[in-house]
Amino acid sequence: MHISSIHQKFQVPFSYIVHFTEGLFDPANPLFRDVIAGDGGEGQRKVFFVIDSGVQEAHPNLQTDLKNYFLNHANVLALNGDLTVVPGGEQCKNQPELVQQLLEAVNNFGIDRHSYMVAIGGGALLDMVGYVASIAHRGIRHIRIPTTVLSQNDSGIGVKNSVNAFGKKNFLGNFAPPYAVLNDFNFLTTLNDRDWRSGISEAIKVSLIKDETFFRFIQENAVKLAQRDMPAMQYLIYRCAEMHLQHIAGGDPFEQGSSRPLDFGHWSAHKLEPLSNFEIRHGEAVSLGIALDSVYSHLTGRLSADELTQILTVIRTLGFDLFVPELDRHLEDASHPDSLLHGLQEFREHLGGKLTIMLLERIGKGVEVHTMDNNLVIAAVRHLQKLQERSAALSSAE
Amino acid sequence: MHISSIHQKFQVPFSYIVHFTEGLFDPANPLFRDVIAGDGGEGQRKVFFVIDSGVQEAHPNLQTDLKNYFLNHANVLALNGDLTVVPGGEQCKNQPELVQQLLEAVNNFGIDRHSYMVAIGGGALLDMVGYVASIAHRGIRHIRIPTTVLSQNDSGIGVKNSVNAFGKKNFLGNFAPPYAVLNDFNFLTTLNDRDWRSGISEAIKVSLIKDETFFRFIQENAVKLAQRDMPAMQYLIYRCAEMHLQHIAGGDPFEQGSSRPLDFGHWSAHKLEPLSNFEIRHGEAVSLGIALDSVYSHLTGRLSADELTQILTVIRTLGFDLFVPELDRHLEDASHPDSLLHGLQEFREHLGGKLTIMLLERIGKGVEVHTMDNNLVIAAVRHLQKLQERSAALSSAE
Repeated sequence: MHISSIHQKFQVPFSYIVHFTEGLFDPANPLFRDVIAGDGGEGQRKVFFVIDSGVQEAHPNLQTDLKNYFLNHANVLALNGDLTVVPGGEQCKNQPELVQQLLEAVNNFGIDRHSYMVAIGGGALLDMVGYVASIAHRGIRHIRIPTTVLSQNDSGIGVKNSVNAFGKKNFLGNFAPPYAVLNDFNFLTTLNDRDWRSGISEAIKVSLIKDETFFRFIQENAVKLAQRDMPAMQYLIYRCAEMHLQHIAGGDPFEQGSSRPLDFGHWSAHKLEPLSNFEIRHGEAVSLGIALDSVYSHLTGRLSADELTQILTVIRTLGFDLFVPELDRHLEDASHPDSLLHGLQEFREHLGGKLTIMLLERIGKGVEVHTMDNNLVIAAVRHLQKLQERSAALSSAE
Repeated sequence: MHISSIHQKFQVPFSYIVHFTEGLFDPANPLFRDVIAGDGGEGQRKVFFVIDSGVQEAHPNLQTDLKNYFLNHANVLALNGDLTVVPGGEQCKNQPELVQQLLEAVNNFGIDRHSYMVAIGGGALLDMVGYVASIAHRGIRHIRIPTTVLSQNDSGIGVKNSVNAFGKKNFLGNFAPPYAVLNDFNFLTTLNDRDWRSGISEAIKVSLIKDETFFRFIQENAVKLAQRDMPAMQYLIYRCAEMHLQHIAGGDPFEQGSSRPLDFGHWSAHKLEPLSNFEIRHGEAVSLGIALDSVYSHLTGRLSADELTQILTVIRTLGFDLFVPELDRHLEDASHPDSLLHGLQEFREHLGGKLTIMLLERIGKGVEVHTMDNNLVIAAVRHLQKLQERSAALSSAE
């Protein structure tokens, strides 16, 4: 009955540039124009902007600067439609009507596969706009202008786009590399302290599992980073972005396999965020997850006590908590849907049935395991709880 | 101001198998089970079926056969949820609520990136289901079981998925290769004559621009094909599919550039379909488009008169018309939105500003041009109109 078959095989090349700059829409900065002028096309390209309302508020001159920039470079750039301002943050990924509104704009403005959709904002907004760009006309060019530490060094520079659906994070999405990523450090100056700090945790993560030298940099600059030193932050973002990009290119860019070895500290982070109704920011959840899995690594005889102390000290010096009440909710009952331990089961499902968790052998060297001991996870939580209480007691005694 | 940049570059490998078989869910045919068992996983895989209601009507035993097949192979296959039957045809791509319904089912049934979404039906249904599969969880595995000539040799075996939006064909979509394509020739036996014939035009197209030997096969077997000879059709589908797959793999699979050189006869086909409110099937529109661009190729001194006659004879022998009233609507007024010539402008926009049209130098050899002469297009239409009238007069005189 089987007559014949044809095995179809091909490779698709992808490439994009990640720039680091300051004053992107300063009239004297040619970067944005050059990035678009370099696309091999001719004449004016239509560019459709979507701006995070938080960024707009913090940078009231942005729209004017942008419009002037386009006027100055009208031989290449045509601003299409109004600048669309939408509320950013995770909530923007929960609004199907926003996706629909942007798709309508793409249609109304005649944005095609040779035009550009540009998003200025935090990771959530970039995710949402990238998703719209990736499904309109089977993919229009999108440029990301990340405005937070987290989006500049991690979430905004990769190949994933998504929105939430059915109450599930990133239920809808796909893999579609951007045309370019333009990291403008000036946007970081107006971040509040929590957002400034949050993004640092992805740098800690990648340094711990892959690059001791980078961890030593973070350790030595922890106080400076906490005090919002810009040169230290610029290097941290550059190096974290570089390692993240290397991981994507060298591994499995479209996650066709099931292992995701860069996800250190993430299984618990994925659980803590919804448990807190997203009051805990992703970066904060990741720092808690790093602390937890570092303690667990030590309790299972991997990481030394001295190295564990160094890691937890860096996390605290940066201003992160080591414990939040969400860690303790129904902690002993792994079958309770609100228990941290239930997150292990969810993570297993998320990975498609086989659990893979990254732990630490030492600073700079991760190791994958496929089972976790619930009792030791509980012990790790209790350990962090004690450290946090002791630190609170010390603070109040001061 | 420009501080530094990182150039991200990688290649993503894709591979999938296209099988040709008969009696796919015959208990003795191991193909479907083997295709899934070969995914490197273990245990039961969840499989979610969406079936074209037209196929269901023509094959009343399909559901029973399918359920029995799953019972027989329960070590690998788990049927998830009910078999979902939806109306196929182009209309299924115009219903956002259908996309939503299938996404909800994916969510409710817990279909993940290690499960399968299988579509049984014509090209439109496969497009729509493939789109759902490509955006759920950033892409779940999808298997296509095309049931028409057109979908088995062309539209169902490629890498594109899409639905319509804002009244525009394929406005939403992306590039996402299937996990596998399973062509079961038995489905062809219940096609009506129009659907049987329609899909042949893509084979004519590819033979004319790339493979004279294949055209000679179609020419010699034209009467047999018109009389629904199955072995001739099987070879035609296999060879057309093979050439289509080679074109995808050897060219620009995700259409990152702008040229689409396999689109011979398609600029006018894309216009005729909406002009007829999709009464004219895609394959019928393509055969009209082939006839038109063949005459145009001759009028511009490319194709010889003898070869043109051979092409038009094959098209007529297969049972296609050479002319439809839609070709003549506002023909002389290129600016009228319902004029065929307006379709040239739309095609230019579709390609992103630069027109590329495939013409014929001779049978088996296409050539690209970047301008079209409106007066010669009009002359080509008139020529076809005369041929059709003469042929009608001959028929009524018989």
